[in-house]
Amino acid sequence: MERIFGIDIDNIVDRIREALQAGDVEEATRIIEELRPADQAEVFSELSDRQQIELLPELDVEDSADILEELHDEEAAGLVESLSDAALTRIVDEMEPDEAADLLRELPPERAKTILSSLTDPNEVRPLLVHPDESAGGVMTSEFLALRRRMTIAEALTAIRTWGPEPEIEETLSHFFVVDGEGRLVGILSLYKLITSDPQARIADIMDPDVIYVTADTDQEESARLMARYDLVALPVLDKDEHLLGIITHDDLVDVLEEEATEDIQRIGGSEPLDKPYLDTSVLYVAQKRIGWLLLLFITEMFTGTVLRHFERELAAVVALSFFIPLLIGTGGNAGSQTTATIIRSLAIGDTDLGDALRILWHEMRTGILLGLAMGTIGFIRALMWGTGYDIAIAVAIALTIVVLWANTVGSFLPLLAAKLHIDPAIVSGPFMSTLVDATGLFIYLEIAKAILGM
Amino acid sequence: MERIFGIDIDNIVDRIREALQAGDVEEATRIIEELRPADQAEVFSELSDRQQIELLPELDVEDSADILEELHDEEAAGLVESLSDAALTRIVDEMEPDEAADLLRELPPERAKTILSSLTDPNEVRPLLVHPDESAGGVMTSEFLALRRRMTIAEALTAIRTWGPEPEIEETLSHFFVVDGEGRLVGILSLYKLITSDPQARIADIMDPDVIYVTADTDQEESARLMARYDLVALPVLDKDEHLLGIITHDDLVDVLEEEATEDIQRIGGSEPLDKPYLDTSVLYVAQKRIGWLLLLFITEMFTGTVLRHFERELAAVVALSFFIPLLIGTGGNAGSQTTATIIRSLAIGDTDLGDALRILWHEMRTGILLGLAMGTIGFIRALMWGTGYDIAIAVAIALTIVVLWANTVGSFLPLLAAKLHIDPAIVSGPFMSTLVDATGLFIYLEIAKAILGM
Repeated sequence: MERIFGIDIDNIVDRIREALQAGDVEEATRIIEELRPADQAEVFSELSDRQQIELLPELDVEDSADILEELHDEEAAGLVESLSDAALTRIVDEMEPDEAADLLRELPPERAKTILSSLTDPNEVRPLLVHPDESAGGVMTSEFLALRRRMTIAEALTAIRTWGPEPEIEETLSHFFVVDGEGRLVGILSLYKLITSDPQARIADIMDPDVIYVTADTDQEESARLMARYDLVALPVLDKDEHLLGIITHDDLVDVLEEEATEDIQRIGGSEPLDKPYLDTSVLYVAQKRIGWLLLLFITEMFTGTVLRHFERELAAVVALSFFIPLLIGTGGNAGSQTTATIIRSLAIGDTDLGDALRILWHEMRTGILLGLAMGTIGFIRALMWGTGYDIAIAVAIALTIVVLWANTVGSFLPLLAAKLHIDPAIVSGPFMSTLVDATGLFIYLEIAKAILGM
Repeated sequence: MERIFGIDIDNIVDRIREALQAGDVEEATRIIEELRPADQAEVFSELSDRQQIELLPELDVEDSADILEELHDEEAAGLVESLSDAALTRIVDEMEPDEAADLLRELPPERAKTILSSLTDPNEVRPLLVHPDESAGGVMTSEFLALRRRMTIAEALTAIRTWGPEPEIEETLSHFFVVDGEGRLVGILSLYKLITSDPQARIADIMDPDVIYVTADTDQEESARLMARYDLVALPVLDKDEHLLGIITHDDLVDVLEEEATEDIQRIGGSEPLDKPYLDTSVLYVAQKRIGWLLLLFITEMFTGTVLRHFERELAAVVALSFFIPLLIGTGGNAGSQTTATIIRSLAIGDTDLGDALRILWHEMRTGILLGLAMGTIGFIRALMWGTGYDIAIAVAIALTIVVLWANTVGSFLPLLAAKLHIDPAIVSGPFMSTLVDATGLFIYLEIAKAILGM
């Protein structure tokens, strides 16, 4: 993986380390300040805690703010522990309000209170703290300029020139939202329209009154889906009375989509979401997130074990039957995983919804029959090639067919059931589905074998 | 999952069907034209092929263009089959150039050629057709206005007013790119800066000359990662001589990120990516995408089967040994899946890269020891509770510990190896990893049991 523009993070980190070891903090600071915020944050993460604490107070307040914004919240909170309240206040003052609120949430409550009350404009940040982290209110920024609908374009331009937002906001701005005298959202106006319209025109006459919005308590994923569906670069967040509270920006959309996909992938793999960058996790933390699903096996194993014990006599009489246990379990598990992963993702991105449940089930059952017959046929030939008797080969073939059909059915039914019960479908995937299919698949196999072998 | 604004797609589809059955095409058209493009496309998808073909020619050219842009390319190509060349040309003329190029790629070559040459401005679309679908050149749009660096702000504003782009472009515009006399990219200027600067200022003096860009042959995922990393809403695409060819816009970024996450999730589940919306797939198509990984089991089963056969005598002598096969296989498979899913995702979003390989391996091996000891202890107690003898219980405990450590090691090593070999790490996950761990895990278990039982 090449870095475009030849930004070699490792090399930059080495140069900073060398400068620090030579006692040249100024040189180290200079190297960091030349980088873009995302690179600054990555370089910073690679330094030791001691080096980070040494460097942070030496950086420009703006650069420090950028770095803290880019870092993961917990990491940022750890880093500012050693800063004085005054130094931290200066930095938080430069942060975007939503990022500032995220950082304050991670600080000890007493300290967060002190910093908040010392800010130049605490009211930009305070309202954001009341919303849960994963809601629209928790990801929105309160740094926005609302135009009044009675303004003329010329008046709006004057207001815009005196606004002076943070560079991050300024650089990606494409819309202004329009409010009435009470601060209620009434329209949206693109910058392009603003600069191509007659300066004497009224905002109310050129704005688009049809605005897509969410309320502050809307889930962040639902908000992001809405933005992705309608190609929005900014989504207004309102309170219950339609007052404009804040705006979810383009970068938040990307972050939320990435975060939700990461959570789904980790859940499909059978782990609770890690909620932080991988290399920032401790071994104990990762183990905690994974042990639950591994332990679930002991419960399902009770069923698998019971099934095998139930057939103890048959397994003892015909040891060859046990040779096919891994193939049966593996096939069921794989067919089920294929199905759940596909269904979970199609539900997540809105390709399908609960209204399609019957179509999905029918689709997967037919796919299961097709795949099952293929696997059964090949399994039959394979068993004969090993010199297994015809009777066992037939039992394996029939069992494979039925197990694949069964796995596809369970694998599509479980995520749909979860969605219906408002549980994240990704939770029921992977380990849960495969351990369920294991026990039932074995039972199907051994019952068929018993019947065919006449035991 | 509620739809914000109460847009009830099913209800709308029903109303359109009723109107069509009553022969009231005009009413059906009116209902569709009131919707937003994304909703129009979803409603359209739900109609029968016959209904779609009946309605499409009746819609506004702009609405038809919007719908075709939102539909999956193959679906769109199927839909326009019945349109006359003249009607299709009018629609394609209204489409964004990158979407038009995507559609033309799916048409029979002869027809694509005819349509292309009849377009009002074929040169907006033609250059896009030469780039592969998954490259930056394949996703960029050629509909942009480049400002000249010698212009004053006032001259730029005049150029902008006479430009008149498609509404989709206009509504999300936040930047203009700046070129020299040869069309080479030299800078970027935000709309905000443009409207807040002195009209007599030269573009060259207020633009930012530090622009992040890609070349047309850059992979689309790499381009999207760059946009996500640096919070860009537009990314310029250049040819080898730095001429500005096109721009990747915000909506393309979102589409690419979603598409890549979907591919990874399907691969982790053990299926080849479906490359189209789930409900548009045929059963045969889905089965084809999945059969490969299922068949792989027969190859790995050769190893598992060989392992079991190798221990036939031991299994026959102590049938209880076989009761623990599913637990062992399940634990190894689950621990391995947890690891691969986490590592694959952290590589994909850039949380980690190959430079972190040793740190990742060490992290996972320590996690493996921790989880292995936990599973071994619980496995030991569980075996005793079942009344299994001490010797087998000890064998199970030791085997569980080693198998988890082994699964975590293999599960982190495989994705890293794949990345090193420039193979998509998601391919080696799931079924491949778990079937590999199955065979080796069984061997470890039975060797330990043999040693402890003194067989």
